[in-house]
Amino acid sequence: MGAFITFEGGEGSGKTTIIRKIVASLEELGYSVVSTREPGGIDIAEQIRDIILKKENTKMTKETEALLYAASRMQHLSERVIPALNEGKIVICDRYLDSSLAYQGYARGLGIENVLQANHFALDHLPDLTFFIDVTPEVGLKRIERRNELNRLDLEKLDFHHKVYEGYLKLCELYPKRIIKINGERSIDAVYKDVLDKILAYLKR
Amino acid sequence: MGAFITFEGGEGSGKTTIIRKIVASLEELGYSVVSTREPGGIDIAEQIRDIILKKENTKMTKETEALLYAASRMQHLSERVIPALNEGKIVICDRYLDSSLAYQGYARGLGIENVLQANHFALDHLPDLTFFIDVTPEVGLKRIERRNELNRLDLEKLDFHHKVYEGYLKLCELYPKRIIKINGERSIDAVYKDVLDKILAYLKR
Repeated sequence: MGAFITFEGGEGSGKTTIIRKIVASLEELGYSVVSTREPGGIDIAEQIRDIILKKENTKMTKETEALLYAASRMQHLSERVIPALNEGKIVICDRYLDSSLAYQGYARGLGIENVLQANHFALDHLPDLTFFIDVTPEVGLKRIERRNELNRLDLEKLDFHHKVYEGYLKLCELYPKRIIKINGERSIDAVYKDVLDKILAYLKR
Repeated sequence: MGAFITFEGGEGSGKTTIIRKIVASLEELGYSVVSTREPGGIDIAEQIRDIILKKENTKMTKETEALLYAASRMQHLSERVIPALNEGKIVICDRYLDSSLAYQGYARGLGIENVLQANHFALDHLPDLTFFIDVTPEVGLKRIERRNELNRLDLEKLDFHHKVYEGYLKLCELYPKRIIKINGERSIDAVYKDVLDKILAYLKR
């Protein structure tokens, strides 16, 4: 029986590294795992993402952007996630619906409820488990600076990252059963073991 | 004070011709009119429409398609419709939200309520008036055959056109205040005069 597990967190939360270790461990334990992120190489989803990211599209409204993310999400779901779940695989997805809710709904001010409505179709495909890797913006941004991999989002003022963080905390309150908050300000090894334990407990429930 | 007026109807309903005559008459009467249709040359909306229409995108799900139409709609609204309304103009739009509801929601089976949710942002921008040009599929398709302009939709079996027609009748029931059903099986001149009278009555109310 498959499981749909998503990872969420701000910049520098370490979730990409954690996911890599989790996938390796689950595979060692004999689970069949698909690791993905939107748009995940799905052609139609990539075409949509290209429009979102195209530098020239400065006039794009927040609403258009939210709907394009939602459209890309449905295609990735249909072509990658759902088929794998139907084959009984564990699907691990780096960011999903909650990213839209935290970034666009809360931090950019579209409203969590409005972004939920735009993602209405995805509500039939909520994750079984979501891990929010809880790292404060100050700690996360410091980590990224060390890596020297500043991207547009990293450069936005700390204020925005605080809003994203607040958004995630809000989502933890709204979905206490689905979203598990993990203290991410520990060593990657400690965080990864914590997450792995919780996934295994879920799979063996 | 601006007004947002949309025209809806199946293939061969004659709405494009009627719109042309309506716009000319309103302008003669001194009104400032913007005539448009989605995506209406709005760059971002056109990019989105290109993805929807691209022949290679055969794997596109109904949900993705509905969200892309909704995204294109928001951009067209923001760049074309809302600015014109804010300048006090009359905006006449050839097809709008109700087309998505009739074609994708009803005829293609996504559900009117689901497509409404995907178009949640557009509900803040409902038309002041919508004219449904009521022409049965049999009459409409006969008109098109005479014109020799068969497109993909025309070629789909009559059954689908009947569903679209049923969808529009359903919408007329759901939105009796906004949607005015116009008998379109009369001469273009009779239909156009009927519509013009109703628009003028609205504008002078």
